[in-house]
Amino acid sequence: MFVILYYDVNSKHCGKMVKACRKYLQWVQNSVFEGEISEAAYEKMILELKKIIKSEDNDSIIVYKFRQMKYYDRCVYGMDKKDDIQFI
Amino acid sequence: MFVILYYDVNSKHCGKMVKACRKYLQWVQNSVFEGEISEAAYEKMILELKKIIKSEDNDSIIVYKFRQMKYYDRCVYGMDKKDDIQFI
Repeated sequence: MFVILYYDVNSKHCGKMVKACRKYLQWVQNSVFEGEISEAAYEKMILELKKIIKSEDNDSIIVYKFRQMKYYDRCVYGMDKKDDIQFI
Repeated sequence: MFVILYYDVNSKHCGKMVKACRKYLQWVQNSVFEGEISEAAYEKMILELKKIIKSEDNDSIIVYKFRQMKYYDRCVYGMDKKDDIQFI
């Protein structure tokens, strides 16, 4: 399946989140990752991520799941954190 | 079309962003919105949003566009900001 993952976590957890997400998905920008992933790998990733997020910090993760990669455009407005130079 | 919109902006712009996005899309959580939107309304929304974001604040918006709503699941882990009580 294809997933888009977005997280909103306390800054002290950001490093671990990025590291864990990068193992399974491609980094898009800021706190957004995307990629093809198997159900098994997804479950493994979520287990890892759940260990990082803390309820007392109001940490949150949202995942959109798709049977296949179906979006036809991804637009970035403002600062493109990928190269830190683009401003449309 | 169906869009998923995510923004990462300086906190001083959050109020305006939420207000503008709510006019066109449904709020999902934190800085994430989604919804069906016409091309015309999309262009109008983006014009509004571009007036809010500032390059000097490294503000950023990402939009995923879909021809139709194709995701089959949206999972929330951690704090569900919609009701501020759920922690899975």
